[in-house]
Amino acid sequence: MTPADLRALLDDVSLGRLAPDAAHTRLLGTLREQPFEDLGFARVDHHRSIRQGFPEVILGLGKTAEQIAAIAARIVDRGHPLLVTRADEAAWAQVRAVVPDAEYHATARAITLRRNVSPGKGTIAIASAGTSDLPVAEEAAVTAELMGNRIDRIYDVGVAGIHRVLGERERLTSARVIIVVAGMEGALPSVVAGMLDIPVIAVPTSVGYGASFGGIAALLGMLNSCANGVSVVNIDNGYGAGCIASMINHL
Amino acid sequence: MTPADLRALLDDVSLGRLAPDAAHTRLLGTLREQPFEDLGFARVDHHRSIRQGFPEVILGLGKTAEQIAAIAARIVDRGHPLLVTRADEAAWAQVRAVVPDAEYHATARAITLRRNVSPGKGTIAIASAGTSDLPVAEEAAVTAELMGNRIDRIYDVGVAGIHRVLGERERLTSARVIIVVAGMEGALPSVVAGMLDIPVIAVPTSVGYGASFGGIAALLGMLNSCANGVSVVNIDNGYGAGCIASMINHL
Amino acid sequence: MTPADLRALLDDVSLGRLAPDAAHTRLLGTLREQPFEDLGFARVDHHRSIRQGFPEVILGLGKTAEQIAAIAARIVDRGHPLLVTRADEAAWAQVRAVVPDAEYHATARAITLRRNVSPGKGTIAIASAGTSDLPVAEEAAVTAELMGNRIDRIYDVGVAGIHRVLGERERLTSARVIIVVAGMEGALPSVVAGMLDIPVIAVPTSVGYGASFGGIAALLGMLNSCANGVSVVNIDNGYGAGCIASMINHL
Amino acid sequence: MTPADLRALLDDVSLGRLAPDAAHTRLLGTLREQPFEDLGFARVDHHRSIRQGFPEVILGLGKTAEQIAAIAARIVDRGHPLLVTRADEAAWAQVRAVVPDAEYHATARAITLRRNVSPGKGTIAIASAGTSDLPVAEEAAVTAELMGNRIDRIYDVGVAGIHRVLGERERLTSARVIIVVAGMEGALPSVVAGMLDIPVIAVPTSVGYGASFGGIAALLGMLNSCANGVSVVNIDNGYGAGCIASMINHL
Amino acid sequence: MTPADLRALLDDVSLGRLAPDAAHTRLLGTLREQPFEDLGFARVDHHRSIRQGFPEVILGLGKTAEQIAAIAARIVDRGHPLLVTRADEAAWAQVRAVVPDAEYHATARAITLRRNVSPGKGTIAIASAGTSDLPVAEEAAVTAELMGNRIDRIYDVGVAGIHRVLGERERLTSARVIIVVAGMEGALPSVVAGMLDIPVIAVPTSVGYGASFGGIAALLGMLNSCANGVSVVNIDNGYGAGCIASMINHL
Amino acid sequence: MTPADLRALLDDVSLGRLAPDAAHTRLLGTLREQPFEDLGFARVDHHRSIRQGFPEVILGLGKTAEQIAAIAARIVDRGHPLLVTRADEAAWAQVRAVVPDAEYHATARAITLRRNVSPGKGTIAIASAGTSDLPVAEEAAVTAELMGNRIDRIYDVGVAGIHRVLGERERLTSARVIIVVAGMEGALPSVVAGMLDIPVIAVPTSVGYGASFGGIAALLGMLNSCANGVSVVNIDNGYGAGCIASMINHL
Amino acid sequence: MTPADLRALLDDVSLGRLAPDAAHTRLLGTLREQPFEDLGFARVDHHRSIRQGFPEVILGLGKTAEQIAAIAARIVDRGHPLLVTRADEAAWAQVRAVVPDAEYHATARAITLRRNVSPGKGTIAIASAGTSDLPVAEEAAVTAELMGNRIDRIYDVGVAGIHRVLGERERLTSARVIIVVAGMEGALPSVVAGMLDIPVIAVPTSVGYGASFGGIAALLGMLNSCANGVSVVNIDNGYGAGCIASMINHL
Amino acid sequence: MTPADLRALLDDVSLGRLAPDAAHTRLLGTLREQPFEDLGFARVDHHRSIRQGFPEVILGLGKTAEQIAAIAARIVDRGHPLLVTRADEAAWAQVRAVVPDAEYHATARAITLRRNVSPGKGTIAIASAGTSDLPVAEEAAVTAELMGNRIDRIYDVGVAGIHRVLGERERLTSARVIIVVAGMEGALPSVVAGMLDIPVIAVPTSVGYGASFGGIAALLGMLNSCANGVSVVNIDNGYGAGCIASMINHL
Repeated sequence: MTPADLRALLDDVSLGRLAPDAAHTRLLGTLREQPFEDLGFARVDHHRSIRQGFPEVILGLGKTAEQIAAIAARIVDRGHPLLVTRADEAAWAQVRAVVPDAEYHATARAITLRRNVSPGKGTIAIASAGTSDLPVAEEAAVTAELMGNRIDRIYDVGVAGIHRVLGERERLTSARVIIVVAGMEGALPSVVAGMLDIPVIAVPTSVGYGASFGGIAALLGMLNSCANGVSVVNIDNGYGAGCIASMINHL
Repeated sequence: MTPADLRALLDDVSLGRLAPDAAHTRLLGTLREQPFEDLGFARVDHHRSIRQGFPEVILGLGKTAEQIAAIAARIVDRGHPLLVTRADEAAWAQVRAVVPDAEYHATARAITLRRNVSPGKGTIAIASAGTSDLPVAEEAAVTAELMGNRIDRIYDVGVAGIHRVLGERERLTSARVIIVVAGMEGALPSVVAGMLDIPVIAVPTSVGYGASFGGIAALLGMLNSCANGVSVVNIDNGYGAGCIASMINHL
Repeated sequence: MTPADLRALLDDVSLGRLAPDAAHTRLLGTLREQPFEDLGFARVDHHRSIRQGFPEVILGLGKTAEQIAAIAARIVDRGHPLLVTRADEAAWAQVRAVVPDAEYHATARAITLRRNVSPGKGTIAIASAGTSDLPVAEEAAVTAELMGNRIDRIYDVGVAGIHRVLGERERLTSARVIIVVAGMEGALPSVVAGMLDIPVIAVPTSVGYGASFGGIAALLGMLNSCANGVSVVNIDNGYGAGCIASMINHL
Repeated sequence: MTPADLRALLDDVSLGRLAPDAAHTRLLGTLREQPFEDLGFARVDHHRSIRQGFPEVILGLGKTAEQIAAIAARIVDRGHPLLVTRADEAAWAQVRAVVPDAEYHATARAITLRRNVSPGKGTIAIASAGTSDLPVAEEAAVTAELMGNRIDRIYDVGVAGIHRVLGERERLTSARVIIVVAGMEGALPSVVAGMLDIPVIAVPTSVGYGASFGGIAALLGMLNSCANGVSVVNIDNGYGAGCIASMINHL
Repeated sequence: MTPADLRALLDDVSLGRLAPDAAHTRLLGTLREQPFEDLGFARVDHHRSIRQGFPEVILGLGKTAEQIAAIAARIVDRGHPLLVTRADEAAWAQVRAVVPDAEYHATARAITLRRNVSPGKGTIAIASAGTSDLPVAEEAAVTAELMGNRIDRIYDVGVAGIHRVLGERERLTSARVIIVVAGMEGALPSVVAGMLDIPVIAVPTSVGYGASFGGIAALLGMLNSCANGVSVVNIDNGYGAGCIASMINHL
Repeated sequence: MTPADLRALLDDVSLGRLAPDAAHTRLLGTLREQPFEDLGFARVDHHRSIRQGFPEVILGLGKTAEQIAAIAARIVDRGHPLLVTRADEAAWAQVRAVVPDAEYHATARAITLRRNVSPGKGTIAIASAGTSDLPVAEEAAVTAELMGNRIDRIYDVGVAGIHRVLGERERLTSARVIIVVAGMEGALPSVVAGMLDIPVIAVPTSVGYGASFGGIAALLGMLNSCANGVSVVNIDNGYGAGCIASMINHL
Repeated sequence: MTPADLRALLDDVSLGRLAPDAAHTRLLGTLREQPFEDLGFARVDHHRSIRQGFPEVILGLGKTAEQIAAIAARIVDRGHPLLVTRADEAAWAQVRAVVPDAEYHATARAITLRRNVSPGKGTIAIASAGTSDLPVAEEAAVTAELMGNRIDRIYDVGVAGIHRVLGERERLTSARVIIVVAGMEGALPSVVAGMLDIPVIAVPTSVGYGASFGGIAALLGMLNSCANGVSVVNIDNGYGAGCIASMINHL
Repeated sequence: MTPADLRALLDDVSLGRLAPDAAHTRLLGTLREQPFEDLGFARVDHHRSIRQGFPEVILGLGKTAEQIAAIAARIVDRGHPLLVTRADEAAWAQVRAVVPDAEYHATARAITLRRNVSPGKGTIAIASAGTSDLPVAEEAAVTAELMGNRIDRIYDVGVAGIHRVLGERERLTSARVIIVVAGMEGALPSVVAGMLDIPVIAVPTSVGYGASFGGIAALLGMLNSCANGVSVVNIDNGYGAGCIASMINHL
């Protein structure tokens, strides 16, 4: 209810076109209406696409396959696009049963159902350091594509062979925002950001061994980047990076 | 040297307008030319404004006041705007001597000299959780202003009194990108991002005591944000946040 | 033996109603009596309900199913209510065989046998941030119910959609003490405590990924809460929270 | 504005006793009214005593003496009791100038001005392990006293001489809630909670050396307490413990 | 070769009873003799019982069952007692095949073959906090028994019910050295050491959950013990504690 | 009060030699008698020398010079030996004023007053790795000397020149217990324990830089020692090591 | 393209022997040529042997068996030697199918195909502390052998029996560079480096338990080595150590 | 005493040219001779230059100025070159008094006295990322120069402007070993090692702020380097890196 709506309502009451009782009910209702649906174990947020430009996304981790499928069904029923992240085969089996048109992206471990969304303005480049970073890079890619963005995948360009990323300067420069995915020492975002004047969303991955500590080394490397324009999301959080990049690409 | 320049040079050689020796020298020179000035202890990067939209910024931490002033003088000599972060009074005294028009921002601990830069497209909102977060918030504000952006400061709206931030929804919604600065548990970015569909740059601060561990609690809280659209920079890194926000606001 | 008992005993000795030998035995016995039963691998504490208002509870973790069942049988034999936490199906199979009336709560991973206990004075509200936090929230709920408290479950009200928890202010305000269960950044307790003047017991969960570090991020967030009235228990310790909340609700 | 107020207002509009314009203004105002006063660097929360039973408290850490005094003056002007924690001598000098009736508690590092508040129902016992824990224990004591509670101080009863705390069982049993303050290995809350059926608020202190890591050892010890009824606040957070204990003691 | 041996040898050379060549060989041999047997993957140290009072012990962790059995056979062949720690059923199957008289201690996860060793002077008391600490306590017990010590097991006397350990003061006082095994907050060693004047070897266990971090909480608690006489070994290192206690008991 | 005392008392009551009132008082008194003196800020434990063989020791850290002097005076008044650890010059000035016969050990940062105590049975060797470890080694030495032990100081024998410690095998072998003090990688205790069959108390020091993390590297090295017979005390805890070594040397 | 090549090309253009268009194409091509082959999921770096003396090595961890086999086939096709590290049996099965001459080293978990490479100048000694360190030591050995080096394996010489490593001084002294592999407290590199004047590459292993924290204790021990000449690689990184040692041995 | 010396001595005894007593004394003496001088607080190792190619170096940290000067005097007396690291002005004042020819290097915080040493074979390149890394880079440079090496300093070439380090490929390629010094994210060693086939010694510095954690971020980044040929020394350990590089350059 906008201020204009409120004014119109009050005018109606003043002019006798609306009884005080009815106005009372409507005003209280506005305060009380729940923009979500309560499934007992979850509150599905159907207003999110109004409030945040994209409907609720299901994080598969820590939910049963049945819970995922139930939430997915409600989202699709409302005509929203569907995105389930961290979805294993068991979740996919349950979701497919209730949303037959959905797709499963095995590398990205994601389930999607595409719907029309407003297109992003430019391209989102996604650079990854090594082959082992692909699942996270693809989670970002699938997320951003579903949200209406054009993606340019530039994979396996880690700094151990610096010529690989230097050779892709042109493609990187053409992007409106760049997602850089790297494990181990996580140096790629610094190098990319040092080459360009484009916002870089850095995603540390848990790829590595020994003192990589499940991605902490890469995370710290990215947070301490000496280059301008690098902000960081959680370890392995391809979804989050795709989401932010899409927001920026829709500005 | 652009591809077109290269073509022109080769045409000149072909037509005898340029001797091969001279061409050789110029081509080698192009590969070798250093877009920076070597002061012995530092290489001042004068091409950065071409490459990255804003000239080199001086991080005061770990440099002597003399080193800071020497680098500052070179930057200003080239007509660039000046930004020194983490500058204490001693550095300010040295810089003022060589750059008389510079300003000192005590809360932000920053030295600036304004020059014309391309203006950002919208407003950058900067929200901070508490009074103790002001130095970091102001570092972000001073940085972004110098880079040509309009700033809306929304300070002391931490989640312990949730009505304070809820009451500023309108100002927040008017921004093109939001910087959220918070210490202690670092929950403010999650709340702000959950209210809106605008990219949020979260800056954890070292404000807090006990198990805040110099900002680690806030940093972890922000990295683990359950809301969409939150990316994070280093603890107390107001400069970095201002810089990224400016990049996004210039897209 | 109370001071009054002691006085009576000494009077009896003085008056010849009790032989010194007998008095000696009784006094030594008082010092030596063991308020527990030694099973070899465990000392079952049968006096705990006198000393602490509720009998010994069995933490299933790290005990064999046989050990759990043996201890459970002794507790039930004395007429006490039974609570086994962190009980898997194997433990349930063994306990059911010796305590046929017991119940198994699958989500909470708990075994209970209800007995009459003194009722709590008001309601304990249990708020949880996400669907994945349910096992911990339910462990708290089952614990507090068994201890005689009325529970109000308010689930899936995390701060990513702040309107969800704001919409439940009334139910929260009606509680005498509130348990707030959250993983990831653990911001929900701060928001709840900032809305009300009621003690909040915060339970961090190990839900999250990447830099949540198995609940450390949530734990630190809660310990550093900028809101008044928040105290914290161990990660995933629903039992502990239910127990404290019950103590407060019985004051 | 209660639902009844709303109804009355709408009736007035309907009956022509109130112009729609005026009603509009009042309704919008209700949504917009700020229950705080904006000093630029801080938003003083004057409604907190209504919302949370006690007015805003000033955490001195990270604020300048001038900022502290300015906020203190506003709080006292409204007739609220005053509490400044982590206040050094400089802050005290500034506050004394504007609030002449205030008191300084040197051990607790706190400034107070007492006003009438509703009294707590029973006694809050505060047990501390060693002499070095006194500043934190006193911060808790001063806080809880200002909030209307009766305090029983039981100091220097650490577990290295277990007879000291065992000898105080009676005083501990007489309390309605117990604050236990300890550094080093932080074992005292476990021992106290194991003796009684009363909620224990554990406060780890940064007292210790070597592998105490500024209170982490005590914090972890308390979080992992094997005894029932222990919840924990941040390291050295005497204020927080006093505040929670007061809430419980006012139930 | 003792100094006396050396003198005798030189006398023999001087008197012509020993040729210089032969003396040369013997002296060089003394420097070169290897007090161990090289199996390729391991060097079995047969002189250890001379040098350290007890022969080499096999840490099963990280060795294959075949490697364990091969080393065990060599040790037994020399007439030494056998101790294999962290031995699973597979290792036991292999060892039993080559050392038929060996015993397997399932709770302690240890294989032993007893031989005559010099008896300790007094009793070693082993106190444990909870049922889940038994495997570590038993590893200590089996180790110390094999090394010739008398053991008094005092199990499940954790501080959550302080009367349990207080009730065992007499047995504890009778010991010459005490091993205290505890997980979670690891407070038991402090309490025991505070009651007595006997060296306490504290063994943290990985028992616990959440913020116990696999025994770190207990380890830190024990290292920071405010009581005199507590030294600490590695997490779950029952063997090490048994070994040190035996050394002290043989002094 | 021994069981025999109790019997005698009851006989007296029975025979009319003692009034029940008087017996009541004495029995209650026994339960209540405080073996310590309450100074308000500290409870001086005068029975410790009975219970633990040595009177209370004052840890200077975190106490004011006045508090230290007050406690010291009470201890000396009772005829006990005095030990203050971590005592700076200010504390020494205060203590000297009230205990004129006390001595100050500058390297060890300790204040002592010697009194007759029972002598230890053998020698305690104290080996240190480097010159920077001297303050901790001397704290151990001063402590153990005051407790009646003979000390053999073997300093600057770190493993970087392994011949230094190998050359002291004889002195080490002559000891009854060995304290090994080392910072940096903390390898010396492993080497010493591998050479001998004598209990080693390892003391990590905070000496080192970079990734020594204030002694954590040395602490972890010692806890993970692959040699038998090594137990560990807190970082820089020379006092604790001296105390344990004395206990063992008095067995 | 060397400077001489560039000069020749320009001469050709000048003399009309090469059209400007053709020269343009060649010069641009030089800048753009990719010294790698793009498989979609990986960019195989065929120029690495020119740039870095040894072709690309495949880190098996985090790659599927199919990906490993595909990359291996491309490397072998070019006539390069093959090294796959962290290869499990599944990877070996796939690689064997496409590279029949390859060998599998089970202990080292490595796949190799030998080709002629330039021989190293001296011997690389590889010392390991215990039997459990063999997989890492063998990874180093297999790596260095494939790169043309002579290896001397000196295994199971940990510091718990210091005579073992002292007895191998001669073999150690004969090496040109020494790799030292150790878990637990990681003291062996300090001892070895203190005996000799030869570069030591230290490899911490994840062998250990409790507070070894998966190799952190050994890593910190090695980083803090008090001996000269020790540099460190990642936990369990036998490959990296073998590679560096080979570089040094080829100088 | 070599084997030949031993043989000669025995021949002399056999031939009566040497009395057994005298031979006994000499042989025992050989075993007992101490290759160091004991100053009480330090054992100056005069044989180190024989054993390790360079005499003992004095780490100034944790030693008093007097101790440093005393050790320095003994080293210089023997004709050895002098190196004191981490020497402040106070140490320099003391050393200058006893070693008048010494030099002080303020940036490197080192004192040296040059003497003839064997020259290294090639050049050691030292690359540093930023101006703040100079003290550590200079400590490495001064160390390596004193040990007879030619140094090429390549400073301020961090990856934020990748063209800076790429432009120095030629100088880097000319080195025999490269020291790379970097703070913040520590990415420079990976980039340098990826460009070349030369051993890289990486030195993390404590330069940075926030989540750099005093150099941990850089340390982890370097340990996890995805490039071949990188080994790492302790944070800020310029001395160690210079020393290793010198060893390699003397091979």
